[in-house]
Amino acid sequence: MENNLQVSLYKISQECLPGLSIECVILGYENQQLKTLVFKFKGELSWSLPGGFIKKEEDVEEAADRIVEERTGLKSLYLKQFHVFGSKNKSYDQMGKYPGQLDSWMEKFGLGENQELKDWFSKRLVTIGFYALVEISEQRPEVDPIFESCEWISVEELPDLFLGQNETVKKALEHIRIQLHYQPVSQALLPKKFTMSELQKLYEILLGKTLVRSNFQRKMLGLDFFIRNEKKKTGSANKAPFLYSFDQEKYQEALQQGIGLRL
Amino acid sequence: MENNLQVSLYKISQECLPGLSIECVILGYENQQLKTLVFKFKGELSWSLPGGFIKKEEDVEEAADRIVEERTGLKSLYLKQFHVFGSKNKSYDQMGKYPGQLDSWMEKFGLGENQELKDWFSKRLVTIGFYALVEISEQRPEVDPIFESCEWISVEELPDLFLGQNETVKKALEHIRIQLHYQPVSQALLPKKFTMSELQKLYEILLGKTLVRSNFQRKMLGLDFFIRNEKKKTGSANKAPFLYSFDQEKYQEALQQGIGLRL
Repeated sequence: MENNLQVSLYKISQECLPGLSIECVILGYENQQLKTLVFKFKGELSWSLPGGFIKKEEDVEEAADRIVEERTGLKSLYLKQFHVFGSKNKSYDQMGKYPGQLDSWMEKFGLGENQELKDWFSKRLVTIGFYALVEISEQRPEVDPIFESCEWISVEELPDLFLGQNETVKKALEHIRIQLHYQPVSQALLPKKFTMSELQKLYEILLGKTLVRSNFQRKMLGLDFFIRNEKKKTGSANKAPFLYSFDQEKYQEALQQGIGLRL
Repeated sequence: MENNLQVSLYKISQECLPGLSIECVILGYENQQLKTLVFKFKGELSWSLPGGFIKKEEDVEEAADRIVEERTGLKSLYLKQFHVFGSKNKSYDQMGKYPGQLDSWMEKFGLGENQELKDWFSKRLVTIGFYALVEISEQRPEVDPIFESCEWISVEELPDLFLGQNETVKKALEHIRIQLHYQPVSQALLPKKFTMSELQKLYEILLGKTLVRSNFQRKMLGLDFFIRNEKKKTGSANKAPFLYSFDQEKYQEALQQGIGLRL
């Protein structure tokens, strides 16, 4: 295994652009919690987002897709770039909870003497952040052999991530929060049919604040991309709430044109 | 001069991150045209956006500010990153109208024999795009010595830019167009007081389409961040249009929260 890792690190240093990495925030919604997919390194305490380097012969967007597939087995996630993290202080050697981490890893994997490899991996990193919103129940991630396990962890309860990646998650959430003001919420986060209470809960989780029920429903139903379906089956027929779904055509139009100013 | 250029190229290759560049789209509005600032290379036919490399000891955002200041003399432009251009085909040697450009330049500047420098500058480029919106009349750009001249050119009439940068301008405009649906138009593009017709013209230029006057005015005045001032002085008092300005507090709030859905 250690030998495999050496080979794979060497391959990366030969095939990829130096100093430029990708980190992916894969977000899903489950049990009224917004969760992101994180990985635990083999034999380490630290966790990481799925991330990696860009091959010399590969577009940046292709690299993001490949990296997510290699790390997680997940395909076709509609990854979108959202921010470049360009702090001069970001590198494997300087960031996160574990300064000097690079040396101890290099040692551990028998790479202590390989100065070329050490140089390649100790460079400053500029990181391109991508995100995707997925339906957790539809995804079956498989763990890359360099990791011990993977988990969907609530964004509120994330451990300290490798390389200061908590900042990457925070920025992705900010990006999504701003989008909620001018785009419909992603349908990937909802079941096909949902009640207004379920929708409100999702907005509350994404925005990180509670909303007034009557205002929320009035505003949502004022938008034109919801279809009202049958009532939800509950014990008491009287109070049963209606189930809603997205009108696909109008939903796509709202995604394109925004729900703000239609000119 | 050629010697100076050699020194400066050498310095860049020593001080900067390889293969990662910045391009800046500085947009202004003048004579009912949206213009961007471009530079003509000394003794060449080709034009370029202000661009450059990131120093190893510099945050990416700092680099964008420095590059714009070095190329144009302009400071404090509120540059914002908007996209990473990550095509595998982008390099000084492969893109734009002039393939093999790098060789001919290297030759011209007496660098034909400097393999190290040639290697550095012929790498694949991943480019971070930044943009800024400015009031043209308030800016007095000064030309970097590596350029012959600079000009504000209408985005409709741009010549073929170096390195395929027309794509960078196009993407910046798309970004700004999408923003118009959920944020107030940038006040940097307007005089302090303006008529609804002037505002409509600006929207039309930015969106690239004509708008119906009555609809436009109703939608704009339905937003709450305009202040109506005195009438504009014209020949006939009767038909004189009102002048509007932005309510700064509400304008800032709309920038933050969007003009779409206020939750």
